[in-house]
Amino acid sequence: MKFQTHRLSVSTRGGNDIHDLTPGVTKLLDDSGLEQGQVTVFAPGSTAGVTTIEFEPGLIRDLPEALDRVAPMGVPYHHDAAWGDGNGYAHVRAALVGASLVVPFHGRRLILGTWQQVVLMDFDNRPRRREIVVQILGE
Amino acid sequence: MKFQTHRLSVSTRGGNDIHDLTPGVTKLLDDSGLEQGQVTVFAPGSTAGVTTIEFEPGLIRDLPEALDRVAPMGVPYHHDAAWGDGNGYAHVRAALVGASLVVPFHGRRLILGTWQQVVLMDFDNRPRRREIVVQILGE
Amino acid sequence: MKFQTHRLSVSTRGGNDIHDLTPGVTKLLDDSGLEQGQVTVFAPGSTAGVTTIEFEPGLIRDLPEALDRVAPMGVPYHHDAAWGDGNGYAHVRAALVGASLVVPFHGRRLILGTWQQVVLMDFDNRPRRREIVVQILGE
Repeated sequence: MKFQTHRLSVSTRGGNDIHDLTPGVTKLLDDSGLEQGQVTVFAPGSTAGVTTIEFEPGLIRDLPEALDRVAPMGVPYHHDAAWGDGNGYAHVRAALVGASLVVPFHGRRLILGTWQQVVLMDFDNRPRRREIVVQILGE
Repeated sequence: MKFQTHRLSVSTRGGNDIHDLTPGVTKLLDDSGLEQGQVTVFAPGSTAGVTTIEFEPGLIRDLPEALDRVAPMGVPYHHDAAWGDGNGYAHVRAALVGASLVVPFHGRRLILGTWQQVVLMDFDNRPRRREIVVQILGE
Repeated sequence: MKFQTHRLSVSTRGGNDIHDLTPGVTKLLDDSGLEQGQVTVFAPGSTAGVTTIEFEPGLIRDLPEALDRVAPMGVPYHHDAAWGDGNGYAHVRAALVGASLVVPFHGRRLILGTWQQVVLMDFDNRPRRREIVVQILGE
């Protein structure tokens, strides 16, 4: 049983940019040589989240549109009034989506649905370079 | 310290069907003989999620009604326009609820609140057979 | 590799009270002496959740205001009709935010963003004493 703590660098464009992390996570798992365990994917930073979705162009638009109903981009935020950075919506969305995801693996393969991908959602209002944590625990 | 990776089969009816997974998870934990650790519950598939709630008839209606405010069932989705399967709302809801949950255990018992159950929410618009992953890590 | 299962006691005021758990979690991690691993933070109870956010006064108001759009405090809930405790909104919010969060650590430090804190959100409509689970797994 051992831990491996890796980083995946992702350059994002800002404004609800969604990235498929599955190929990067799969590569790290292949390289680990571990048979069974779990991968924790964590987004350091308070304007990005990690979840799973079918990574296809329609849903890449649908998901931010749904979040517009919860934390719209065009309304006042107390955060923005105090700090003036205009990304209050992004903080709220990130808190709701969540920073961590845990995906089990078995037989050296991630146990994901056929149409299910691990994604980073970067909500911030400017391009960012994200260093996503991929921590593998297994045997 | 060891991993056990199990599956719980759940037959769902479609349309925001919520199932209490606690008895099944508890049974697997009892059988494991492990004293301390954590259980990861993961929904493979992109139209279902895992969370905790007090599993009682009122909330089983309240939770989908709240999600109707975020990802309504009667509005157009880009996903549906492209794929025609009419479950765009289900994908969005699943991404927001999240596919993974981690519950600690100690003294051979899940550390849950008195009125807190582990639930599968299947949002898809048709009956499905779900194979939920229950991965126990402990000592 | 070992598990340590701790509790953090938090007294909450009710009504979307948000608490920064980061100092308490950091102290437990410092005391553990562990180098690499992950901390699972779990809220037992069905009216509280755990997530990360920049813990500053603006967002402490923005996040509940966003949740008002999903699970408003002033509308009827089936839960309240049956049980009369008036906290249906709190159950729904807790289920959406989620009860568990997993934060990796490395070099004896939590891998969090500079402005990212681990927070408890207690949605219940009365003061509570919460015993939050902080489970450290590491080597």
